[in-house]
Amino acid sequence: MNDLLKGKKGIIFGALDEKSMAWKVAEKAYEQGAIFTLSNTPVALRFGQLDELAKKTNSTIIPADATNIADLYDVFEKSMEILGGKVDFVLHSIGMSLNVRKKIPYPELNYDYYKKTLDISAISFHKILQVAYKLDAVNEWGSILALSYIAAQRTLYRYNDMADAKALLESIARSFGYIYGREKKVRVNTISQSPTMTTAGSGVAGIDSLIDFTERMSPLGNADAVDLADYTVTLFSDLTRKVTMQNLFHDGGFSSMGMSLRAMHQYNKSLEVDFPG
Amino acid sequence: MNDLLKGKKGIIFGALDEKSMAWKVAEKAYEQGAIFTLSNTPVALRFGQLDELAKKTNSTIIPADATNIADLYDVFEKSMEILGGKVDFVLHSIGMSLNVRKKIPYPELNYDYYKKTLDISAISFHKILQVAYKLDAVNEWGSILALSYIAAQRTLYRYNDMADAKALLESIARSFGYIYGREKKVRVNTISQSPTMTTAGSGVAGIDSLIDFTERMSPLGNADAVDLADYTVTLFSDLTRKVTMQNLFHDGGFSSMGMSLRAMHQYNKSLEVDFPG
Amino acid sequence: MNDLLKGKKGIIFGALDEKSMAWKVAEKAYEQGAIFTLSNTPVALRFGQLDELAKKTNSTIIPADATNIADLYDVFEKSMEILGGKVDFVLHSIGMSLNVRKKIPYPELNYDYYKKTLDISAISFHKILQVAYKLDAVNEWGSILALSYIAAQRTLYRYNDMADAKALLESIARSFGYIYGREKKVRVNTISQSPTMTTAGSGVAGIDSLIDFTERMSPLGNADAVDLADYTVTLFSDLTRKVTMQNLFHDGGFSSMGMSLRAMHQYNKSLEVDFPG
Amino acid sequence: MNDLLKGKKGIIFGALDEKSMAWKVAEKAYEQGAIFTLSNTPVALRFGQLDELAKKTNSTIIPADATNIADLYDVFEKSMEILGGKVDFVLHSIGMSLNVRKKIPYPELNYDYYKKTLDISAISFHKILQVAYKLDAVNEWGSILALSYIAAQRTLYRYNDMADAKALLESIARSFGYIYGREKKVRVNTISQSPTMTTAGSGVAGIDSLIDFTERMSPLGNADAVDLADYTVTLFSDLTRKVTMQNLFHDGGFSSMGMSLRAMHQYNKSLEVDFPG
Repeated sequence: MNDLLKGKKGIIFGALDEKSMAWKVAEKAYEQGAIFTLSNTPVALRFGQLDELAKKTNSTIIPADATNIADLYDVFEKSMEILGGKVDFVLHSIGMSLNVRKKIPYPELNYDYYKKTLDISAISFHKILQVAYKLDAVNEWGSILALSYIAAQRTLYRYNDMADAKALLESIARSFGYIYGREKKVRVNTISQSPTMTTAGSGVAGIDSLIDFTERMSPLGNADAVDLADYTVTLFSDLTRKVTMQNLFHDGGFSSMGMSLRAMHQYNKSLEVDFPG
Repeated sequence: MNDLLKGKKGIIFGALDEKSMAWKVAEKAYEQGAIFTLSNTPVALRFGQLDELAKKTNSTIIPADATNIADLYDVFEKSMEILGGKVDFVLHSIGMSLNVRKKIPYPELNYDYYKKTLDISAISFHKILQVAYKLDAVNEWGSILALSYIAAQRTLYRYNDMADAKALLESIARSFGYIYGREKKVRVNTISQSPTMTTAGSGVAGIDSLIDFTERMSPLGNADAVDLADYTVTLFSDLTRKVTMQNLFHDGGFSSMGMSLRAMHQYNKSLEVDFPG
Repeated sequence: MNDLLKGKKGIIFGALDEKSMAWKVAEKAYEQGAIFTLSNTPVALRFGQLDELAKKTNSTIIPADATNIADLYDVFEKSMEILGGKVDFVLHSIGMSLNVRKKIPYPELNYDYYKKTLDISAISFHKILQVAYKLDAVNEWGSILALSYIAAQRTLYRYNDMADAKALLESIARSFGYIYGREKKVRVNTISQSPTMTTAGSGVAGIDSLIDFTERMSPLGNADAVDLADYTVTLFSDLTRKVTMQNLFHDGGFSSMGMSLRAMHQYNKSLEVDFPG
Repeated sequence: MNDLLKGKKGIIFGALDEKSMAWKVAEKAYEQGAIFTLSNTPVALRFGQLDELAKKTNSTIIPADATNIADLYDVFEKSMEILGGKVDFVLHSIGMSLNVRKKIPYPELNYDYYKKTLDISAISFHKILQVAYKLDAVNEWGSILALSYIAAQRTLYRYNDMADAKALLESIARSFGYIYGREKKVRVNTISQSPTMTTAGSGVAGIDSLIDFTERMSPLGNADAVDLADYTVTLFSDLTRKVTMQNLFHDGGFSSMGMSLRAMHQYNKSLEVDFPG
């Protein structure tokens, strides 16, 4: 390893189990010399395996509901205490939609659930930023990242109101990134990751065939959680200090593809089935 | 006039007084042969001059809070009754932020106000679409439009949480546009308009100099409310049936400018002041 | 019809036969009251059916190689003479790649052909603009349009070096649009059209299945040449005066789609074929 | 240093003197453990200080005109010989416009110069990629980068035909990135860098005030050549393997800004001068 994060302190929100993107980020950050705390909701802590990760990475778990300001103050205050000072990086890997879970179609959204989707998946990022900012809890040239998805730009059936949440999340990154950069030299970005088979993602109907499609569309194939962790390390490091307010596609090229040979080849098989003879 | 909207029926949300963009749209739609209803909140009706517009365009006013589903059912049901059938177009020109009004800086957002900003300025568009969709209130090849602003893509200091609201609004247009197009052949778009000196806009501190800057940056100058009304007419007409899920910049070229001769020339004067001698 | 182009004069480059997009634009512009000249290369005139279009729309044909400045002077000078003054609109519908025709793969491009692709498909647009500008041949608030394709933003296998040509074309539209807007109040835009089965397009291998895919991806289906002609009329009209330097997607929503139900459904059939049992 | 490029081999095109971006990249790549060759034109070698860099970084200079295929074969073949195998990274930092140098305004472009601009600044990148591809000169998971500028998306007066060249360059990166990724798992990206005061750049009239403006617009200030070199190292490293076909803004946030407090404040001073009272 390269000691890319040697001496850096951080907070990682949203690791659940070893399939989680945040989990892989934690492992890689640890390998690269960082120290950090882990946070997730009490429910997630009960059902996940975060203790294992904490042990492995020598880190402390601070339970918090990321939509709750008081909880977030607790996370930042305790983290600074435990880590011995301000932090250098924060990862936001949080998202949930009851409309998706309950298979409520987009034109019939339940608005209470919709607001919850936005609150948990996007506004929580503003709250984390606000608390960090008010506490002055991030060192100069610190790096704050949230995980997003291309649904923020292009509609995917079934992704439902999570698309709106990701669009809002990316806007918050820009809006707050301006202020945080100007006032404290802290950068704020989002990574727009390939569809990734996490425990959360695996519940989404039809995700298998979507992943098959994006795999064939992407010249380098889908980026997985380990790839993401590697990329995240660079964005937490001092080598990317002037990158801010960006949404960075990390997807094997998918976002810049209109049609690939492999995906078209596969699609054509279906047409043969349709029009036999 | 060209009878571009002859025989078309519509609903226009958000006209307040003769400076309003929605007001100009109503006048042009009327000139082009459309019939429509007008809707705004009871408060806006009290302080605005909507009666005058209704008289001028021979239209009926239906008061409604666009965040209230029951009110929206009322608007669509009455409109269909008054206009004699389903509608062909809808304009959403609604936006408000208490954080802006109360000059609460973005990193210190009041979250109750923030949620209100999103609810009024963006989610109201989903609600309008949902009610229209559930009532099957829009004819095939109908056109639904909301007004947006480039702050959805690029941060402008002081535009505050309205930037996030516009990003969410544009995402809703895409997400619902997919469904509405697929199921009912209805198109949904947003127009990203130049900064425009409306009664609402004139309250924003510093808008004068921003408008001066964008005027000099835009090769054709800022688009005003009358220009917008013209453009809107084309997007309500049958000539643009295959345009959907788009955010259309209507801004004299501003969105594609990095730096203009005129803006740089003006800016340079300030530098001379800074560095005299 | 709506007399949207009544009194307007124009030049239409690139009509070949009745499947051509430029052909449909000519028909619609004529219906809307415009007068115009038609131009294409001598070869195209020999193999196409432009005489028929000229008769139908009461217009004169002026042969020209659009990469040849002298020819272009001829087109503009004769057009102003024939039409009785400066023009109000110009359509550029010109593109050709020998690399595509000869099936030379992109990594092995023949650079002489490549430069020809750029010259014919993109730089010709600059030349048309330059000649128009130098002759002051376009009225204030005139509208100049070129036809583009989403390959300018997203790679499609087999579209080859035409993707680069379209990217260059769109850049020229922005670069010249700034100058032409600032100096003469003339707007310059590109329309990014659905894949369209023209005589030129039908030579491209695999275009059938691509069109099948985009049809299923686009909530409103692909836009065809007649749809395009309608849309073009609005962009030539006085109702869109402040739209400039834009690339306007006219594609039934395709550009804003990540994955549709219908396309995924079709794709899934191919997976069943792959993984039977 | 972090040995991020330990064992990696590369080729760096376009270093001239110690202000060059490619120069700084070479220094950082060396610090991170890479070995590489340097290439520039014979003229540049005569007027620049490349010998000094070669000595410092223990590298060999291979003169080449990057528009000349034979020269490029020479560069790649010799590099593989000198470095002992295939390369892992390539940097393209090449651009030149005679239209800019001779102050020929964009609407009056000399087309011979224009084609030269495209050939030197964009097509040379295709040629480098083609030669590398045909020689199979890049290892799996290699990284090829070109330097771009936001003029590819937004028009800046005086940047002239270099804007079109950068748009073409970015398109080539996508088009070839698809093929190179699919066939060889090599990634191809562009970095869109802040305006940077290099020896080449310093000749551009008015660049001082543009840099003043972008400095005030960017929350983190402009990215300089050293920042760029740091960022480039991450993109050459194994930590960013799934990033391809992207244009990556490295600009302190400029690309996501509409208007900043500091820039507006400065601009306002000019307005006071204009409208004294």
